[in-house]
Amino acid sequence: MTQSFETISENRSFGGTQGVYRHKSQATGTDMTFAVYLPEAAQHGRVPVLWYLSGLTCTHENAMTKAAAQEWCAETGLAIIFPDTSPRGDDVADDEAYDLGKGAGFYVNATQDPWKPHYQMWQYIVHELPELVSDNFAIDREAMGISGHSMGGHGALTIAMTHPERYRSVSAFSPIANPTESDWGRKQLGAYLGDDREAWKAHDSTLLMRERGYPGEILIDQGSSDQFLDLLKPEALAHAMMERRQPGQFRMQPGYDHSYFFVQSFMGDHVMWHAERLA
Amino acid sequence: MTQSFETISENRSFGGTQGVYRHKSQATGTDMTFAVYLPEAAQHGRVPVLWYLSGLTCTHENAMTKAAAQEWCAETGLAIIFPDTSPRGDDVADDEAYDLGKGAGFYVNATQDPWKPHYQMWQYIVHELPELVSDNFAIDREAMGISGHSMGGHGALTIAMTHPERYRSVSAFSPIANPTESDWGRKQLGAYLGDDREAWKAHDSTLLMRERGYPGEILIDQGSSDQFLDLLKPEALAHAMMERRQPGQFRMQPGYDHSYFFVQSFMGDHVMWHAERLA
Repeated sequence: MTQSFETISENRSFGGTQGVYRHKSQATGTDMTFAVYLPEAAQHGRVPVLWYLSGLTCTHENAMTKAAAQEWCAETGLAIIFPDTSPRGDDVADDEAYDLGKGAGFYVNATQDPWKPHYQMWQYIVHELPELVSDNFAIDREAMGISGHSMGGHGALTIAMTHPERYRSVSAFSPIANPTESDWGRKQLGAYLGDDREAWKAHDSTLLMRERGYPGEILIDQGSSDQFLDLLKPEALAHAMMERRQPGQFRMQPGYDHSYFFVQSFMGDHVMWHAERLA
Repeated sequence: MTQSFETISENRSFGGTQGVYRHKSQATGTDMTFAVYLPEAAQHGRVPVLWYLSGLTCTHENAMTKAAAQEWCAETGLAIIFPDTSPRGDDVADDEAYDLGKGAGFYVNATQDPWKPHYQMWQYIVHELPELVSDNFAIDREAMGISGHSMGGHGALTIAMTHPERYRSVSAFSPIANPTESDWGRKQLGAYLGDDREAWKAHDSTLLMRERGYPGEILIDQGSSDQFLDLLKPEALAHAMMERRQPGQFRMQPGYDHSYFFVQSFMGDHVMWHAERLA
């Protein structure tokens, strides 16, 4: 299979390169845009890579511009990839609500119309995009970690627990932690996967934690003043982690909200966390 | 009230002094032994102080010799106090089991015979001993933190949540986190406080967390290979912390057990945690 992509922009950043690229995705059947930061170390050989999945309403751009990850990735020699959160385009199904459709792919493979034709974000993130970037950038596919914020934290945790052989490290910022019991989850899982709740179980971090956990340590940060705590349900995942004796840490950070000011404040900790485990 | 005590031993340690002392306690009606480490900084003025409460079967001696706290207290200029875990003496009630009676005071004021006459450990730890040490050592009673291991973690958390005005920082190592629902708790609370479970509620960290929490951040470390996890119930406290949005962090440390090898491994983190908050 030939994989081609075009360069939208490239900017020097902390001695490395912040690039934005576009390609035709087989998984989603649409053009997809993604961002890659390569540290200076990537000029000398393949480097470990951190996947960062964004939250509701985001594109590849939010974290790239507001998470302040490049400084830490440069220092630790880590690449970081910011994918989009859903398919885009005029022929892609959407919903008027901010939390369904475009910008709200929820990192699942939709099985229900009208979403099924393009909303294949799990396939895209887990399979297609890693192949494309490892074929075209100096990243080490054997040293991948994954993180994300909110809906992206949900994606990171569910993906890592499902494919621990692919992701050697995982962390999350204020993840949607128990979507099968939240209005951030039931609506989307019902739309994309249908009414059979059995199909939802593979996409709930708390349920996956109870069932299988993760073979490495997990780092989760949550702001105590997050305006969406009732939707995120950190207590459910914290209980499941500790009940399972899952190695890792769940940190409730006082006074922080759901914004990128929060994410930025702890991005250094997360990048260092992944760098130590991917070295 | 005249408070007198005798010196059992004093040893230089990391530039400071590790002492062991004995006094007649009014609270317990017995002689009580306690250990105080004073860093070199205490020669120049009053220093902040960390209370460290030990676990079942321990005396003042276990943590003093095995927790490796002195190095960190010297570096940060913190005093640390290691009290005993129960009254001692031939006329003190006891039980054949290791987890009731001597070495198992559970940091409560007993209301039931035969325990009531001497088992007044809450009164001793919270009121009597702080007064004695602040009258006789260069410690700053306005800058006190509290920590502990297992039964002592239970003591530290329940005491700090009940008296946040006295304890400006709190942490715990593998605390007995939900004793009203554990065989490490029901037996002891029933013996010391009687069958009325209302009286138990003030001595369960999970219940106190649900009801009131703590105004500062809390640090808890738990080993994932702890042989007593089913008795400690970290999941209950973690759930209560996150549900309350309690600032702090609950860390599940992979591979560590219930021993002082675990406590020692993270003592540096805890001392630094307290030092930052008591400075």
